[in-house]
Amino acid sequence: MEYTFSDRTNNLKPSAIREIFKYASDPSVVSLSAGNPSPDAFPIKELEEISARLFKEKPIELLQYSITEGYAPLRSYLLKYMKEKYNIGTENDDILITTGAQQIMDFATKSLVNEGDVIITEAPSFIGSLNTFRSYNARLVGVEVESDGMNMEKLEQALQSNNNVRFIYTIPNFQNPSGVTMSLEKRKKLYELAKKYSVLIVEDNPYGDLRYSGEFLPAIKTMDSENIVLYAGSFSKVVSPGMRVAYVIAPQQIIQKMTVCKQGSDVHTNIWSQMVCYEFMTKYDFEKHLENLRTIYRKKAQFCMDLLDKYCVPNITYDKIDGGLFIWCKLPHNVDMLDFCKKAIENKVCVVPGNAFLTDENEISHGFRINFSTPTDEQLEKGIRILGELAKNI
Amino acid sequence: MEYTFSDRTNNLKPSAIREIFKYASDPSVVSLSAGNPSPDAFPIKELEEISARLFKEKPIELLQYSITEGYAPLRSYLLKYMKEKYNIGTENDDILITTGAQQIMDFATKSLVNEGDVIITEAPSFIGSLNTFRSYNARLVGVEVESDGMNMEKLEQALQSNNNVRFIYTIPNFQNPSGVTMSLEKRKKLYELAKKYSVLIVEDNPYGDLRYSGEFLPAIKTMDSENIVLYAGSFSKVVSPGMRVAYVIAPQQIIQKMTVCKQGSDVHTNIWSQMVCYEFMTKYDFEKHLENLRTIYRKKAQFCMDLLDKYCVPNITYDKIDGGLFIWCKLPHNVDMLDFCKKAIENKVCVVPGNAFLTDENEISHGFRINFSTPTDEQLEKGIRILGELAKNI
Repeated sequence: MEYTFSDRTNNLKPSAIREIFKYASDPSVVSLSAGNPSPDAFPIKELEEISARLFKEKPIELLQYSITEGYAPLRSYLLKYMKEKYNIGTENDDILITTGAQQIMDFATKSLVNEGDVIITEAPSFIGSLNTFRSYNARLVGVEVESDGMNMEKLEQALQSNNNVRFIYTIPNFQNPSGVTMSLEKRKKLYELAKKYSVLIVEDNPYGDLRYSGEFLPAIKTMDSENIVLYAGSFSKVVSPGMRVAYVIAPQQIIQKMTVCKQGSDVHTNIWSQMVCYEFMTKYDFEKHLENLRTIYRKKAQFCMDLLDKYCVPNITYDKIDGGLFIWCKLPHNVDMLDFCKKAIENKVCVVPGNAFLTDENEISHGFRINFSTPTDEQLEKGIRILGELAKNI
Repeated sequence: MEYTFSDRTNNLKPSAIREIFKYASDPSVVSLSAGNPSPDAFPIKELEEISARLFKEKPIELLQYSITEGYAPLRSYLLKYMKEKYNIGTENDDILITTGAQQIMDFATKSLVNEGDVIITEAPSFIGSLNTFRSYNARLVGVEVESDGMNMEKLEQALQSNNNVRFIYTIPNFQNPSGVTMSLEKRKKLYELAKKYSVLIVEDNPYGDLRYSGEFLPAIKTMDSENIVLYAGSFSKVVSPGMRVAYVIAPQQIIQKMTVCKQGSDVHTNIWSQMVCYEFMTKYDFEKHLENLRTIYRKKAQFCMDLLDKYCVPNITYDKIDGGLFIWCKLPHNVDMLDFCKKAIENKVCVVPGNAFLTDENEISHGFRINFSTPTDEQLEKGIRILGELAKNI
């Protein structure tokens, strides 16, 4: 039989990163293309203890059906925690626990965006979210990311020239892939523009707790007097991505609609992982755990930047980062970036070509993304040395 | 701000069952409205052992990102197991692990169905699947379920009179909500009709392993010489629903498209639960566990049918069941079923009104669904006695 697929998914392709992972799984290849937390960063002992205790104390709750909104103690604790620690959440807000933060993008798009409607994103932006938006036939409009975040003039132009913009998607902290953090001034401006043009904001903040240098900046969600911001938080980078637990804090009416979407998708998030996250946040020293993570990643990021300085600069340049898991590397404009990435793979180093992160993959990019949290120090040194050698000879 | 939702979700409502659960959570109410496995049915000790061992032996694999297709050992084991035990799976098939079987309906609809396309379902059918189909603005056409499955003449009429049918959705074993099992003759006929009209079949089989009487019947998928059947299996009713693990065996090309959908939704299914399911199937006596479940449910179903005979028949009638978790009860045609269900709630017994399972909830139904796996024996006796008393006085 010839299969006919829906219009929305007919042209969908597996993500470019995913294709690159095929090379990356070759053990002789140094992969700088992943986005996995460092294996050192998992609180294994604590999670093991919690899991064992839950099996003794609440085995039925751990295995039975649960409610779509999420584990009630985790929901109310997160609302309180996020309000007290970050001033996130308004009286009109509610919270939904999701199976990873990608699912937030799925349900936000499904519930808010008709085919052909516009989503404005940073350019470059996180490929996973871009592909989710594409899977509903949303039209993506990218706005250039500068060293302090989106170009606000271009954002306003995009809002003016498209009358069916449904939301602006932003990763304000240590953006994936650019590593850029949006300045406070631009956060305020972005909020004002969204308000002015009656557009929602989806603020995706998976890396916010991984700031290892520089000054903390408040989330856009803290300015949400108009109830227009959906805030996405996640346990993937601070506890475990395999557990697939994230949460969205957003206006009640939107949470209700997203909850109906979740009911029709996976019914509820794995309850074991929700209960484990709750216990870890409330019965252990979660703040100390975050501090440990920052220590691990601060060291690893500095090591990576030192290697780039040693082997790659000035043939490859990069912006210093204050947090997160990624560094954006730039090639001179006369170099064919895709060709460079291919050569890197031939030399057993895998990076992600920058065009993969653009709303139109056919646009030209001179950047590529490297990740320093997954590889060992030895792999990082080897990989970056090879990139440096390649860059010298172009 | 006034929120505008997408056309596809604008009219979506939380499911009627979900609304009923609000009453059911009142501890003074006897709920016969759920579909939860019996708490006795969970292999707690085994899962606890496995989980503890995995934390010792493979902690990083348990917590790190995994691949979208699912845990490789579980995928290949399931393919082999389903082929050897049930002759399910062709050379052209592949398998995707999902976060519960509801997600299979999500991705099947997302990848195969345009807005306005038709999905043919049994009438009545599982409300969760109906709502998923509705969430993509599919048009639902229901075909009456008889005591041996769908009416095949009406199915052919539906196929003839709709030229954009994308698939037929069926639960052939111990159907939710009717309890009906499709005869072998009708399974063959359904396959022939799907082939004749070039339409796919989505065969949902969550209860197949819970046959406690009568003769085993082969899945429609076993007849799949044309590669037109998507077979949905699940661990929810045989291991644990809170773990959210299911799988779809279907033609490779469709699995590929569904995998892209999953990548854009929850990236991958919780890896702990996938590994636990694999270990439980391969290192324990899984067949003996299934036999234990059948013993539990056989007893519970018989107890429930005895109570119906004692308290309700002939004012309420029902069809005897050979498996699954549900019994479909019928009121005389002169009785207002919705009114009866409301009276039941006023008398602290919660059942699900039959029209909730129809493609058009405004159609008249004389049935309601009861579940016997969740309540205790005492609750069952009390609830069914009250239903019987109400039925006497109408």
